[in-house]
Amino acid sequence: MDGILFSGGFTMSCVAEERMPDERFERLFNPRHLAIVGVSTRGSGFASGIMISLQAIGYEGTIYPVNPRGGMFLGKDLYKSIEAIPHEIDFAIIAVPAGEVAKTLEACMKKGAVGAEILSAGFSELGTEEGVEMEKEIQAIAARGIRVIGPNCFGVYSPRSGLTLLPGPDLSRESGPVAFLSQSGGMSIDYAHLGKWMGVRFSKVISFGNGADLRETELLRYLENDPETGVISMYTEGVKDGNVFFRALADVARKKPVIIFKGGLSEAGGRAVASHTASMGGNRVIWESLLHQCNAIQVRSLLEMAQVGLAFSMIPEGNYKNISVMGGGGALGIAACDVAERMNIGIPPLREDISESILDLLPKPGSSAKNPIDVANPHVAPQILKEVLLRAAQDENIDLQIMIQLFYHYKVMARAMGISVKEATPYLELADAVGDVVKTTGKPVVLVMPNIKQGMDSMDIEEMRRDARRAFLEKGVPVFDELEDVLRAVRHVSRYHKRKNDLVRAYAQ
Amino acid sequence: MDGILFSGGFTMSCVAEERMPDERFERLFNPRHLAIVGVSTRGSGFASGIMISLQAIGYEGTIYPVNPRGGMFLGKDLYKSIEAIPHEIDFAIIAVPAGEVAKTLEACMKKGAVGAEILSAGFSELGTEEGVEMEKEIQAIAARGIRVIGPNCFGVYSPRSGLTLLPGPDLSRESGPVAFLSQSGGMSIDYAHLGKWMGVRFSKVISFGNGADLRETELLRYLENDPETGVISMYTEGVKDGNVFFRALADVARKKPVIIFKGGLSEAGGRAVASHTASMGGNRVIWESLLHQCNAIQVRSLLEMAQVGLAFSMIPEGNYKNISVMGGGGALGIAACDVAERMNIGIPPLREDISESILDLLPKPGSSAKNPIDVANPHVAPQILKEVLLRAAQDENIDLQIMIQLFYHYKVMARAMGISVKEATPYLELADAVGDVVKTTGKPVVLVMPNIKQGMDSMDIEEMRRDARRAFLEKGVPVFDELEDVLRAVRHVSRYHKRKNDLVRAYAQ
Repeated sequence: MDGILFSGGFTMSCVAEERMPDERFERLFNPRHLAIVGVSTRGSGFASGIMISLQAIGYEGTIYPVNPRGGMFLGKDLYKSIEAIPHEIDFAIIAVPAGEVAKTLEACMKKGAVGAEILSAGFSELGTEEGVEMEKEIQAIAARGIRVIGPNCFGVYSPRSGLTLLPGPDLSRESGPVAFLSQSGGMSIDYAHLGKWMGVRFSKVISFGNGADLRETELLRYLENDPETGVISMYTEGVKDGNVFFRALADVARKKPVIIFKGGLSEAGGRAVASHTASMGGNRVIWESLLHQCNAIQVRSLLEMAQVGLAFSMIPEGNYKNISVMGGGGALGIAACDVAERMNIGIPPLREDISESILDLLPKPGSSAKNPIDVANPHVAPQILKEVLLRAAQDENIDLQIMIQLFYHYKVMARAMGISVKEATPYLELADAVGDVVKTTGKPVVLVMPNIKQGMDSMDIEEMRRDARRAFLEKGVPVFDELEDVLRAVRHVSRYHKRKNDLVRAYAQ
Repeated sequence: MDGILFSGGFTMSCVAEERMPDERFERLFNPRHLAIVGVSTRGSGFASGIMISLQAIGYEGTIYPVNPRGGMFLGKDLYKSIEAIPHEIDFAIIAVPAGEVAKTLEACMKKGAVGAEILSAGFSELGTEEGVEMEKEIQAIAARGIRVIGPNCFGVYSPRSGLTLLPGPDLSRESGPVAFLSQSGGMSIDYAHLGKWMGVRFSKVISFGNGADLRETELLRYLENDPETGVISMYTEGVKDGNVFFRALADVARKKPVIIFKGGLSEAGGRAVASHTASMGGNRVIWESLLHQCNAIQVRSLLEMAQVGLAFSMIPEGNYKNISVMGGGGALGIAACDVAERMNIGIPPLREDISESILDLLPKPGSSAKNPIDVANPHVAPQILKEVLLRAAQDENIDLQIMIQLFYHYKVMARAMGISVKEATPYLELADAVGDVVKTTGKPVVLVMPNIKQGMDSMDIEEMRRDARRAFLEKGVPVFDELEDVLRAVRHVSRYHKRKNDLVRAYAQ
């Protein structure tokens, strides 16, 4: 297998994989004693910014802010040096000018820190000799025992302890199965925010920027055995050692799904990568074939990464070959069929007796119960929709069900009745009903809720949609805006598990 | 050309194309005297529904509601018969049980109506002999002079007069260049709503349902010469006469872009089409090659149709081969390059002197001015961004500029300053600045505004985003959520005009 996997231009490497013990990772991701170096009394700069973020999110450890000139910030005295901190520290956040980073890091190590995140920029990403040299200095210190995240990054987000990213005062405190490793700070914060409302919950998000020390391979190996992590996702612009990385990736993907968004696969993108993180972009064909061989899940945008992360979090292992689609309006179902065919997912006619028993439930004329199921209008009662889903699930061909809801149509009704959209729309009852269906049938149901009305005069609909999303997610029903996104994500889930099982079987023989 | 265009299984036809005179179409789309037949005093049913919608949108003509039992609704006396209406009518909206439609239509014709929309269902879409017969009866009456839209449809939306779709009380009253012909009622109302906030303005939207009389070909021919319409879009599940339709399409597309969403191209989709509008779905390869030969623009979802409609409305004719991309954060630009390559759009390095002069403006470290332009953070002042765009436009290689904005980052700043997100975010100033750039440089700028934060705690960001969209649209800057959507739409614009010019040239020789 090696011969196939590691051909393709990656330099062979003799570097053995090393990994820090798990208990030290635990102190790094969930530190109880945390130094923040570079805090300004005026509240400007990254260090003050992250201190604000940590306080806002409710970080649960003790913070020791440091500034050589002393003073106060957010009601805390600033320590004049790291040495002056009255306790051993677990972790440090460093945001001082690039030239002062090395000595700061050294001092943090002496103070007992297992690791530090360096938010400061001005290193190898500049492409200057000076920048490269300073980054090497950091690496040399790291090699002596303090592990480094960064420089030029947003740091670590760990919902359990409340450690958060530089611009992340309002991220979720709820932990979940998805880990995210990101070479880009922007992607890390964007995904953390997307996840919060989409229903993706994180074990940890690590923005490692230039990756002077800790980066993709070692972190991947850590996540392989991290009991908190069930799904791994990664944004990478280039890996340090392709050989070691792809070997690790192939191993890890046999245990957990690994979703990879590789930036810089185009010619212009490769050029842009060079000035962003100084990585080599790499050839599209090589990357795509290696990712495929490793059974990694390649995605092509942040949004797709989040959608696929949601699908892997909420849809159980399975091969979802055939689905049912239920919506109010014929064109929705037709569009579903056309998309499904492109995705190689079937929408087969329901068993005749089931179809007939469903038709009995639906308003006439205008409805159709063949699959797609057209319930004829957007106001069909939750208990009817529940019964339709229950009956359709009895067809042994159906592996998963999709329900499309255009809740916005209730606004007209709300207006006529003189009540709010939230009161007029039975979305809470429907969420309960669909939750019951999932429990009873054991077959997943996904809600598609297209965002048709986004005008200034529809803020009430938006508020209702957001609450509906929350309610369905709580009942174990993932929610998407567009049907195409569901089907793409479901296809990734099916394919991954099928290939994983094939590969595991091949290895077992 | 005919030989190529009309091979592929469409029945040859000898039916000559007929068309109603434009002044009669004008009375139909913008009627001054309008009968609504089937209004219930209790406010239930389609006729009462559309009367509510017409009153809410502010329809400007006179409404004559009809119910054999008389009574009152919305403060208006109901006429007991069409004959009892004290004025000649231009148009009628018919929503009575299927069996009563024919005689109602006949009466409307006698009362002077040039046309009627039949909202009632229960005709050929049922697939029953009775339904088919009743639809034939409608056709026979229509042939004697009253043109019919429907049955089984949502009718006509004409912003100029305020005629609106069945569920459309709150559509925009602003007219614009986009016409939409839809076999599906659901698509017609969804697109009308999408257009309202996306910035697509309509000349008229026509939901023609079963299309017993007026349908795709004749309406297309009408729109060909309609001075209000600059861009035609169409959702179709199947056409009545492929031969005549594709000939018309090829003609019309030589004058105006025609965007087509064809539903039912898959096997399952074709089956679903049969039970929705009783059309033949048709073969994917034949459809796609005929659409291509006609230089129609094929889209694959409602959302794409709206995005492409917006692009054709706001981006002038041109061949947009190379673009600049400006955003705060390196990964955004890299992703842009990767998408652009797939779309065959270039993001070339800027001319060196221009790149250097842009870099002078940007915060350091962290920025890059090669193209993509990474302005390093999301808080760069509007006047700086304006200057960057002005300088980049001086590069003769650049045909169009894209600006990515993650306004949500201003929320942290707003909180620190104790002001609202709307106050903290300089989006109005930026809209003015970018509007100036477009005017000065003559090169389009498109704003990409990813919707990262959609939680319950971000309603303030949502409100700001919506107002920002309005402000940019007013300055002639189209707004999209995702970069991929812009590039796909821009590619359609370039391709259409290039092929149109080639075809026109070929015909001229």
